[in-house]
Amino acid sequence: MPRKTVIIGGGPGGTGAAGGVKAVDPSAEVVLYTQFEDIAYSPCGIPYVHGGEIDSFDRLILAGKQAYVDAGIDVHYETTVTAIDTARKTVTVKGEGEVSYDSLVIGTGFAYADPGVPGTDLGGLYYVKNIRAAAEWDKVIANSKRAVVVEASPLGLEMVTALAHRGIETHLIDPNPYALAAMADPDIMAPVEESWRELGVHLHFNTTLEAFLGDADGKVRAVRTSSGEIPVDLAVVATHKTPNNALAAAAGIKLGSTGGIVVDEHMKTSAPDVWAAGDACEIPHGLAGTPLQGLTGSHAYAQGKAAGQNAGGGDKTYKTVFVPWGTPAGKWVIGGASFGEATATAIGIPYVVGVAEGISRSRYYSGVKKVKLKILADPKSHKVIGAQMVGGGDGIKERADFLAQAIRFGMTLEDLATMENVFAPAIGALTEPIVVAANNGLVAAKKA
Amino acid sequence: MPRKTVIIGGGPGGTGAAGGVKAVDPSAEVVLYTQFEDIAYSPCGIPYVHGGEIDSFDRLILAGKQAYVDAGIDVHYETTVTAIDTARKTVTVKGEGEVSYDSLVIGTGFAYADPGVPGTDLGGLYYVKNIRAAAEWDKVIANSKRAVVVEASPLGLEMVTALAHRGIETHLIDPNPYALAAMADPDIMAPVEESWRELGVHLHFNTTLEAFLGDADGKVRAVRTSSGEIPVDLAVVATHKTPNNALAAAAGIKLGSTGGIVVDEHMKTSAPDVWAAGDACEIPHGLAGTPLQGLTGSHAYAQGKAAGQNAGGGDKTYKTVFVPWGTPAGKWVIGGASFGEATATAIGIPYVVGVAEGISRSRYYSGVKKVKLKILADPKSHKVIGAQMVGGGDGIKERADFLAQAIRFGMTLEDLATMENVFAPAIGALTEPIVVAANNGLVAAKKA
Repeated sequence: MPRKTVIIGGGPGGTGAAGGVKAVDPSAEVVLYTQFEDIAYSPCGIPYVHGGEIDSFDRLILAGKQAYVDAGIDVHYETTVTAIDTARKTVTVKGEGEVSYDSLVIGTGFAYADPGVPGTDLGGLYYVKNIRAAAEWDKVIANSKRAVVVEASPLGLEMVTALAHRGIETHLIDPNPYALAAMADPDIMAPVEESWRELGVHLHFNTTLEAFLGDADGKVRAVRTSSGEIPVDLAVVATHKTPNNALAAAAGIKLGSTGGIVVDEHMKTSAPDVWAAGDACEIPHGLAGTPLQGLTGSHAYAQGKAAGQNAGGGDKTYKTVFVPWGTPAGKWVIGGASFGEATATAIGIPYVVGVAEGISRSRYYSGVKKVKLKILADPKSHKVIGAQMVGGGDGIKERADFLAQAIRFGMTLEDLATMENVFAPAIGALTEPIVVAANNGLVAAKKA
Repeated sequence: MPRKTVIIGGGPGGTGAAGGVKAVDPSAEVVLYTQFEDIAYSPCGIPYVHGGEIDSFDRLILAGKQAYVDAGIDVHYETTVTAIDTARKTVTVKGEGEVSYDSLVIGTGFAYADPGVPGTDLGGLYYVKNIRAAAEWDKVIANSKRAVVVEASPLGLEMVTALAHRGIETHLIDPNPYALAAMADPDIMAPVEESWRELGVHLHFNTTLEAFLGDADGKVRAVRTSSGEIPVDLAVVATHKTPNNALAAAAGIKLGSTGGIVVDEHMKTSAPDVWAAGDACEIPHGLAGTPLQGLTGSHAYAQGKAAGQNAGGGDKTYKTVFVPWGTPAGKWVIGGASFGEATATAIGIPYVVGVAEGISRSRYYSGVKKVKLKILADPKSHKVIGAQMVGGGDGIKERADFLAQAIRFGMTLEDLATMENVFAPAIGALTEPIVVAANNGLVAAKKA
């Protein structure tokens, strides 16, 4: 009889796991439960459909349902798992009763943090997540005149830009002094904020949400904040991601300090034959060891693949993370790897920093764009510990990938200062910004 | 009395050296001799002015002459050095006589290989190099109807595209079966060749140049080749770069198998107090140890900086090279690091290869482009030994930089298969092509 793996969740963690099981054991029985009507779509694309950069929600569907049938993966749509029994090795499924497993992968994802203010039961509060809901909300957006985005999180950034592109009077409120404060440094975000202002966005930093205020129909009509009331007809709630951990918690599976499921290097939980992947779990930062939660779809997918391979009888490790990240923001693209200065300071990690104000190609070639890039390094060993960038777009993603790998491999400022780089007028400048930043970091280290 | 450094050559090697000396010893006397009327321009941009992508030759000038005056660097323009005496530590300068030095940096650059056929004394043969000459040649191009580019070298590639963009009937002749055969693999060049054909370029591979044929006025009217005669009114001679080594050779400075000046890790030549940088010297390949010659302006500049620092009394090493490269070609951008399959096969290095047919951003995001990327690795250790790419442009340069550094650090296919990557629809796909290629390489290694 084939081994049976049950997977809870149809996001990148769950679908990655399904593929992972089949990769090591094509004969395995794989049953995947998702609450939604679709699977394997890219929710990360939703803000860009709202913003008009992608022309249809249909384009976000990655693989049709038939692809899963063909792959021998039994997907149960719109189906809720209500309990896990790790002793009896069963899950309870609404409408199906108790279902047994040989191995289980939990990919229950995230929920937006509860804003914790009155009025969250009003209409007009949009939590961006489900693609079918997004199509409905797009009509609401089309009829909205004034919108507020609650918190300058990664999703908040994307939605601010999207709403502004739609010509809506857009307000952003955030309790921090600048946008994306949990990840990025103020100097990286300054040009982004300037470009939002150019788009007409109203930025309300150092501002706390106090309540959503409703009209007679129970629909949001304003938000009350520490800096006064803002009339709106739409509120995008882009609070930080929290792990969807209720099922795991009720089953007695160990949770960590972030609330995420604790996993080992094999993505295995504290329970026998139970693995987890994606936003439901927490993963230690590769340098600091601090648990991270709420990473990207790419992380969830890679974790899911590892969890699935192990659940299917394989042996696959998933290493600690150095978190390359990047996103368009306003008219710029921002990105980085590991820490910025704000985070390093907050957790008490000493650093020196080297900054480059570089360019993306020869300064005389059309389309040349600015790239500001900074590298943080340990003052003694000169090992790189973080990087952040803001630029016109070219190569931000690829540099973030590279710098995360450089941190993973313990590269020093000296190593980056002596790296070779492509010089070709149309695609790369004589001097690579990474090299300039590393050299400037060495100067800073000498003075430190 | 300040130490005096003499530099021969005003290209990136020479100007890099001038800055290098001043960086370690601001009081040093620095005298730089160049045969040309200008300094520190970017000859790499010339084909793009011819092609219309850059609007003026003036834009290629990097720093005005005054900048060198301000930096305390004494540049002698249009001045020829005719001899070096390493025993007496002097150079002979036309019009100045014998000039002494404490240290000397040779940055005499390259010359195009002599085509070695009759007719090289005809008019209408364009060797792309000097910016003032290029401005004159641009007028010739404007009046040309049919042109031939001799050899599909890096410069040849750029000039083919430039001439085609100018609407000239363009022929390319090359003795190899495909373009850029000394560096690139045929599968990488195939889409480039296809895009040239779309532009109307006539490709003549496996074709040897036999003679330039002249008209009554002593101007080229055709080329004779192993596949017949091609009537042209312009011939761009883009043969491979050879080291400009006459001065060094006459001075008894040691040359290597490529004809380039042999230097140690400090860019020091066999002669006391004499350093060299750029295309005049040869540098060992970081993996194979084989001497490389005719690298890029970026290499020359970095070598010049190291040579200058050492000539000025500092201690700076320049490491063996892993040669990231990249260039637009036809409607594509190609690039790589270290070897491709053709070179690895030619020099007898065993390898396995993993190929990714990837995309530059989410497949549903506008502007998404194909990226074909392949990684070569040692079959036993799985250490990466080379990479090549062809794609729409995004991130080719940055990936080449990264992969060169990955090779330098001995990263394996396993290391690249488990790297993290940014996922953000507008700038990066869920799965990075490097990761896919590395995974496919592991599959190939298992079968090998």
